[in-house]
Parts: sequence; C-alpha cells; structure tokens
Amino acid sequence: MIETSKRVEKIEEFRVMDLLRRANELAASGKDIIHMEIGEPGFRVFEPVVIRGIKAIQDGMSAYTEAQGILSLRESISNFYYKEFGVKVSADRVFVTTGASGALLMLTALLLDHDENLLITDPGYPCSRNYLYAFSSDPVLVPVGTQTGYKLTSSLVESHWNSSTKGVLISSPSNPTGAIYSSGELGELSETIKAKNGFLLVDEVYQGFTYKPLVSSTVLSVEQDAFVVNSFSKFFGMTGWRIGWIVAPESVRKDLLKLAQNFFICAPSIAQHAALDALTSDALIAANSHVEEFRVRRDFLVKALRDLGFFIHGSPLGAFYIYARLPKKAPRSKDFCLQFLESEYVAVTPGYDFGKYDADHHVRFSFTQNLSRLEVAIERLSRFSRSWK
Amino acid sequence: MIETSKRVEKIEEFRVMDLLRRANELAASGKDIIHMEIGEPGFRVFEPVVIRGIKAIQDGMSAYTEAQGILSLRESISNFYYKEFGVKVSADRVFVTTGASGALLMLTALLLDHDENLLITDPGYPCSRNYLYAFSSDPVLVPVGTQTGYKLTSSLVESHWNSSTKGVLISSPSNPTGAIYSSGELGELSETIKAKNGFLLVDEVYQGFTYKPLVSSTVLSVEQDAFVVNSFSKFFGMTGWRIGWIVAPESVRKDLLKLAQNFFICAPSIAQHAALDALTSDALIAANSHVEEFRVRRDFLVKALRDLGFFIHGSPLGAFYIYARLPKKAPRSKDFCLQFLESEYVAVTPGYDFGKYDADHHVRFSFTQNLSRLEVAIERLSRFSRSWK
Repeated sequence: MIETSKRVEKIEEFRVMDLLRRANELAASGKDIIHMEIGEPGFRVFEPVVIRGIKAIQDGMSAYTEAQGILSLRESISNFYYKEFGVKVSADRVFVTTGASGALLMLTALLLDHDENLLITDPGYPCSRNYLYAFSSDPVLVPVGTQTGYKLTSSLVESHWNSSTKGVLISSPSNPTGAIYSSGELGELSETIKAKNGFLLVDEVYQGFTYKPLVSSTVLSVEQDAFVVNSFSKFFGMTGWRIGWIVAPESVRKDLLKLAQNFFICAPSIAQHAALDALTSDALIAANSHVEEFRVRRDFLVKALRDLGFFIHGSPLGAFYIYARLPKKAPRSKDFCLQFLESEYVAVTPGYDFGKYDADHHVRFSFTQNLSRLEVAIERLSRFSRSWK
Repeated sequence: MIETSKRVEKIEEFRVMDLLRRANELAASGKDIIHMEIGEPGFRVFEPVVIRGIKAIQDGMSAYTEAQGILSLRESISNFYYKEFGVKVSADRVFVTTGASGALLMLTALLLDHDENLLITDPGYPCSRNYLYAFSSDPVLVPVGTQTGYKLTSSLVESHWNSSTKGVLISSPSNPTGAIYSSGELGELSETIKAKNGFLLVDEVYQGFTYKPLVSSTVLSVEQDAFVVNSFSKFFGMTGWRIGWIVAPESVRKDLLKLAQNFFICAPSIAQHAALDALTSDALIAANSHVEEFRVRRDFLVKALRDLGFFIHGSPLGAFYIYARLPKKAPRSKDFCLQFLESEYVAVTPGYDFGKYDADHHVRFSFTQNLSRLEVAIERLSRFSRSWK
C-alpha cells in the first residue's frame, strides 16, 4: 500500500465534482441538464486565433519554446498593457505560463516556504488554498462579507497578518463574488502590505469581464511591484488551450525562470503561437462584444434571483458569477445543490467550494449559458422553490 | 525588494542555459552552430497527428477536458500497454498530464512531504532534484558509474536509504547515459524497495528509443505497483505540445485527481485530441523508423568519439545521448563546453547538469542532428582536440 503525503491529504476535493458526476449520469439517462456550475465562458475562439493555431501546427511549431515564452507573445502582452491601461510593462517582466494554474503554481513556489502563509479571501477561488497545501504552506482564510463588498481591506490585512505571513492574494474581478477593487483600494492595500515587507498578488483572469459603466483595470496602474496572474482562458474562450501569463517585478526574473524551466520547460507551443492573434484590436472588440452579452444575462439573472428571494449584494461588477445568499427557508447550500440537480436538472456550485465563511447559506450561479437557457433555469428554480415555500 | 523562498534558492540554473545564450549570440552574428546539447528529437510530427490536432482546433475543442484526461486517450494508452507489452493497465490508472514535467510535479507532491527524500541517480535528469527542492523535499544523489552500467542496484539502495527516504526514481532508458534496466534488475530493485515500504518511480519518456537487438520495455511488466511517467514528447516529436502521462496504482487515484484538478485543471485539450492518433500501429511504425535512423547516428558517433580519445562505456542502449568521459588531456567539462562552442560553434552539455559524480570529466552529446551534421561536428571536434593534444 502506497503512503501518500500529508500535503495531499489536506487538499479538499471540490464538492462540485460530485455534482458534475451526477449531472453526467442524469444527462446519460436523457435528462436536459443546465450547467450553471461552470467556469468557462463557452464562446467560440476568435477566428484569427483559430487560424493562427492551425498554422502553427501546419508549420511544425512543435519544439520547446524559450521557457519564459516566445518573445513576440511577451511583447504583445506588453503592448496590451500599454494600449489598454497606459502602463509600461517590459516584455522581460512577462512570463507566459501553462494557464493561470501554472502561474499560481510557480508563484507559490517562488514566494512561500513551507510553514509560511498567505492571506486569501473567503470566499475565494478554490484552488488558491490547495496550491498552498501542496507546497506545505498555509492559507489564512480572511472572511470577507457584504460589509466590505466582499473585498479585503487594510484593516483586515492588519488583523490577520502574523509572523509567518508573506503576502496577500486577491482576485479582481473576483470569483465567486464579482467584486472589483478600485485603484484607491488597491493603493491602500499595497501600502499596508509593503509596510510589512510582504507581497501583493492579484489574480486578474476575469479582467476583461468588467461591466459598464466600469472599465477593466489592472493593479499595475497603481503598483508596479505587484505580481499579476492573467490568462487567455476566460476573455478569449481558450480554457482548454492552457495559456496564461505572469507579470512580475524585474528582481525575481531569474528565479522565476528557474521555476519555469523545471516545472514546465515551456507553455504549450501551439497555444503560444495562436495567442499572438488574441490581443489585437479586432480580437479585443470581438471579446468585448461577448462581455456586453454577458451583462444582459447578469441583469436578467440578478433580478430573477432576487424575485425568488435570493439575497444578492449589488450586481456583480465583473466575472460571470452571482454569489447569492439562499432564501431563508431554502435548504442549506449542499442540500440545495443536490436537490436542485436531482429534481430540476440544474447544476450550481455550493458555497463550500469557495471557503467556510457563511458557505452554508451561499451558492454560486454562473451565467455562461445563453439567455434563453437562463430563462428555463429560472423557471425550474421557481418550481423548485415551491418545495420550501 | 521581494524576498523569494529558500526552496527556489536551492534550485540550480542549468549550466547549458548560459551556453545556449552564447550560442544564440554567435548564431546571430552568422556562425553556423551545431546543437548537440538538445533534448528534442527534431523530426516532424506524424501527419495523422497533425491533422487530428488541426481538426481539434477547427471543431472548437477549446474547453477544459476532464482532469484525468479524455477517456478515449486514456483507453488508447491502456491499449498501447497491452499491444506493445502484453500488460493490462486499466484506463482508470492512466493520468494524462502536461508533459512528463507535469507528471513529475504531481508525483512529487503526491508522494513526498517536506523534509522527506527520494533516491535519484547521479548522473540523472537535471529537473528531478529541482522538483524536490521546489517542494522542500530532498534528493539523495546516488553516484552510479560504469561498475553498475550507470544503474541503481539493490545494494546501492540499501546503502543510501535513510529514515526520511520514501522511494526511488530511476529513468530507463536513462538520460544522460542511455542505460536500460533489465526485467531482472527492475524486479530486484522493486523487491528491495517494497521491503522498505517505499515506492518505485520509473521515468520511461525515452521508452521508444530502445536500440535493436533490444526491444522497448516497461517496468509495469514486472511491477504493477510502480509509478510510471511517459510522454508523447520524444518518441512522437511533440515536445512543445506538452503532453505526457502517468500510470499509477489504483489506490492513489483519488489523490492524484485532486492534484490534477488543482495544478493543471487539465492537460492541453488540442494536444490531447491530437495524441489520439499517436499510438496507432501506423504511428508506431513511423516512430520506429526514426529510431532506426538514430541507431545509425549513435553507431557513427560512438566510434568517432572513441577514436578521438573519449571513453564511452558501451554504446548507449536507449535514448539519444552519449555520456562521454573526456580524454585525459582535454579541458575539464565546463571549460571544454565553453571553448568548444567559442572555437568550433558546437554546443554540448557539461556533466554538471546531471549531478556531481565525476561531472567534471563528462559531457553529454545528443545525436538529434542528422548524420551529415554529426560528421561536421566530428570534424570540428577533431580540430578542437588538437588544442590539447
């Protein structure tokens, strides 16, 4: 019998996985499942990106690239920051990674030793705490609620920081709450963390999904020493391609390079070449038109859920999720998800997957399905709600 | 100033990287560089794999796949073991990974806690010790020399095992020596390790590069509880695609799944679909014809190097490297590599990248270049050798 590590023991399996398995069984028996548990935007990849990917395969771009990522792609990312945000980010500071997952994996190894910890928000992206466990480091889950708009604040950082804390991870726009930090909030957080000699890491994978009248933003406008994780997955619908990036301070370049060489050798070469056509003006216009469509879905869903008694603290400003508090008489999170799936064939994610804080009373709805599907989902939810009313 | 982790400090940068940078400078100034430092076979990907990859992009296979890898690919890998080696490996035990790199990363996290250690061979694949450092675990470098044909033996395991040792990692065929373990040797090793409640992990990424009259083999024929890492990179020329696999005992499936979900979400989807056509009979015939060509190169290079005074302990049985001891009067490894590059524009890898044991006197020649290029390389080496004779 193989003895596995204690670090793996600590990693929790996502609750949504059991639901997914059950959803697949139900689908196999002919049920029409509506997937509102999913973190994928589901639109088709922009045609020039498709063509560039195909060309990369035809041209035999099958060799390893440089570990940091092909220079032209890093330059294209550098230009993106300048054109979109007026921020100068040298291509030397950009690392092309195997998705945002690869980025977070490398940054965990770069920045934390075992038995050191990182402040993360609760609720927050489920993998974050698991990366830490994998490296024998620790997450400090900081509960963030409606009082702070689901955001970490300087005073929360002050009250949770201890002698083993090395830094702070936030996401903006946030999964699961859709919260977005303002420049002022980021500046204040950054000052607080700097005073403690810590680092600020911002997951910006939902950057493009910022709903009007807000415009998308980056922490780099405020703090050039922040670590940024981003990805082609969400905004460009390239989840399966596994391609993302890091922006890091110049001083850690050599160390990050060592990690990139050892952990990945390089990010997938075909995806790197395809991504060269993802940050053009045309591609950004196409991506933004999707976002406009998502905004309509959000507005529909927020209103419909509220009408059914769900509490939503302000419409999400970004991402494509609604983190909703369950109506008073509804079953608790886990039961709610199970029963909703079994009776109405709609899958949603229980609050537990995002942390512990009031998780029992929350579920996450994603609005990656089109409007007519969302309408059906709401009809089903309305019917389901009669079971507890 | 950002403080990086102690674990990253321990990771060594590959010496060959400096050489590569210099080689690129020289190439930019018009020099004709011969790359014998490279770990990529360099042949074109088999056409049906290319077509399948293109189709996957056209069909919009851009979503995440299941974390373990798409079932049809895992079944194709399962069939491969049965057809090639007569070994039954259930698709449930196969994990499709982001290259062998992703596989080794997951297995390190799965099997070792911080401050535990793993026995690895010296010389051996450079990343192995670095994965361990990244997870705050330790490599125990076991010197293997000509006495044991560069192989780990039961008595070496016995003499290096300590109370923090959890298992053993070997590669067969081995990088950099080309050594291949026989079934008898693997069986004996496995028994020794089992008696210590340890695990045996075998890196088989060069499996297909086994030279006649030997035929390729797998530890799974001898020991079903061994962990195996393999890859489409070398045998199918798909290095940049980042696609490999793990075979693991049934008992760790749940834990590996957690790691796959968190570390990678899934292996690149396009590469997974393309790889569906990599293990067909036709693809294997095509791949084997490359191996036949590599054998001719090996024979040429072994003889030519010996004629120039290099010591080679038997022709390498597998992989595409020659780990050669430098002639007595030649400069030591690092100087040798630098001077050979500067004077003759040929890049080879210094022994240091593979460990410490007698590294000063060894270099690795890869024979991924075609025969006529190898002939030019030998001419240049012959000229270079006059500088020390």
